[in-house]
Amino acid sequence: MAMITRPAEFELIAKYFAPLAGEGAFGLQDDAAILSVPEGKKLVITQDALTANVHFFADDPPKLIAQKALRVNISDLVAKGALPFAYSMAIGLGDGWDEAWIAEFAKGLGEDQARFNMHLTGGDTYASHGGTTISITAFGLLDEENYTSRLGASIGDTIFVTGTIGDAALGLKQKLDQFDKRILGMGEKTHLQQRYLLPNPSLLMAPIIAEFASASMDISDGLVGDLEKLCKASNVGARIEVSKIPISSPARKLIQIIPEQLETVLTGGDDYELLFSVPEKQIIEFKAAIHLLPVSIEKIGVVKDAKDGIGLYDDDGSQLSFESSSYNHF
Amino acid sequence: MAMITRPAEFELIAKYFAPLAGEGAFGLQDDAAILSVPEGKKLVITQDALTANVHFFADDPPKLIAQKALRVNISDLVAKGALPFAYSMAIGLGDGWDEAWIAEFAKGLGEDQARFNMHLTGGDTYASHGGTTISITAFGLLDEENYTSRLGASIGDTIFVTGTIGDAALGLKQKLDQFDKRILGMGEKTHLQQRYLLPNPSLLMAPIIAEFASASMDISDGLVGDLEKLCKASNVGARIEVSKIPISSPARKLIQIIPEQLETVLTGGDDYELLFSVPEKQIIEFKAAIHLLPVSIEKIGVVKDAKDGIGLYDDDGSQLSFESSSYNHF
Repeated sequence: MAMITRPAEFELIAKYFAPLAGEGAFGLQDDAAILSVPEGKKLVITQDALTANVHFFADDPPKLIAQKALRVNISDLVAKGALPFAYSMAIGLGDGWDEAWIAEFAKGLGEDQARFNMHLTGGDTYASHGGTTISITAFGLLDEENYTSRLGASIGDTIFVTGTIGDAALGLKQKLDQFDKRILGMGEKTHLQQRYLLPNPSLLMAPIIAEFASASMDISDGLVGDLEKLCKASNVGARIEVSKIPISSPARKLIQIIPEQLETVLTGGDDYELLFSVPEKQIIEFKAAIHLLPVSIEKIGVVKDAKDGIGLYDDDGSQLSFESSSYNHF
Repeated sequence: MAMITRPAEFELIAKYFAPLAGEGAFGLQDDAAILSVPEGKKLVITQDALTANVHFFADDPPKLIAQKALRVNISDLVAKGALPFAYSMAIGLGDGWDEAWIAEFAKGLGEDQARFNMHLTGGDTYASHGGTTISITAFGLLDEENYTSRLGASIGDTIFVTGTIGDAALGLKQKLDQFDKRILGMGEKTHLQQRYLLPNPSLLMAPIIAEFASASMDISDGLVGDLEKLCKASNVGARIEVSKIPISSPARKLIQIIPEQLETVLTGGDDYELLFSVPEKQIIEFKAAIHLLPVSIEKIGVVKDAKDGIGLYDDDGSQLSFESSSYNHF
């Protein structure tokens, strides 16, 4: 067996992670960092961890693992109406890592922190015998009055989602060879798998959410389950028109041939799109604001009274139900 | 095999973690939290992760695992002169957890966050097939001008440490049965193992560090290795008098019988005591300030020119050297 050449911890940090450090991080030479919150701004904090064989495959490209780890957190910030500012990262390196893996991983972070305008404050590196684990705590900024929680949806608000729903969950099934190979073409397969590998939050949505949304969250555990969470937190119900839910053409093709995959689309995870509600009195201004935005936003339903529950309706008025409404983490 | 009864993720959060949430955390019902930094204060951020079979044993008491995970971070904050304010936590639950484990774990967090005056902002729970992993990002507050990094030690500064050194590393060896059972009595064994299980940072040190230290860090990877890091960051050397390093009576007894355990004491990890330097012109005020403080603080050496290197000297003037100066994380 060939020996794997590995740099020592301090070399690893100095060579690959220190260049990612920003103001107040002392080039990662210190135990901690100072974060200066600009006057008049509030700090928004979110923390999501990814672990091998649960949230990604150990042999996924390291660059994409890094970017997924960062973007699932950026997605949360944007869902709150906040713009990314900085992040801290603890990385547990699973058996078998080498310097080339780290180099690619750090490159992925570097490209994304430039893309999303944030810097590394510090963190921790350690050996993780159970598989690589990345725990990122992301910091965003906003004006306090604009924080958008899950708790503010009111009866009559319109419910919207961004992008298309279900691609990532189908992409995972595609990767696991759960579909007849002949159904989709190569480009369609790639589209779905790419959606699983890498979320693509849009910072353009942050000011829109901050200004217009009464409640908002990102869809990480499946549309139906996450809608249930938002409704529970806001103490409301919802009526969703299934035909209005935006679905990509590869996903639509799969559903046409295997109708039960509609359940995967609506209850699978990893979309990292936004689910939010807009009050009726804001709708005209909201529509004007998103008119020229290069983000697709679709109305999928309306907020109802809590006693009406959450209903998903077909065009013929029949109600859909599913065995499990969302991805179970345990 | 008996089935393990486990609550669903949302129940777990609502029942055990939501009661730990503070202001701006929406009772953990939201994806993120707002942290309001008081006017005139700066936010200090640190993140340390612990993973089973590296940083603790899977069968350690869950209450102590929780408290160790929090306290290794508090230790970093205090070393920077900051007082704890809040924390975010991602917890990956290893195979075999049950509700009783979580209940004890949360109880440990609850007791410690009251003790150290901080609250939970949020985080993440997930399944970790490789063993339980806890990644805490801790937030502290201080006046910016008082942040104490590792970078500020100057030639002639006096070097101090708090508490006693080496107990935790010996406690780990004790637990692994690496010493003749007859050397230490039960109380002595318990003392050492307790030091491994649970660090005990003192918040009383935060204002002392903030006011007097030119450089400071907590000792987590062994005194000698961490001293090397501080000296490297400050671009200085150091002369340490080994006989001045504070050592507990069980550790002293072990070293008397097995002299090579001095190396464990000086290069082992998990002390979570403070290592800091104080400029000569501050020494009188510093000594007055610590005079009545219920924390033991000992002078162990002086900061020298970088070209002198780092020397550890015996009372007879001979220099000590070790194979490895600190705990290797990989």
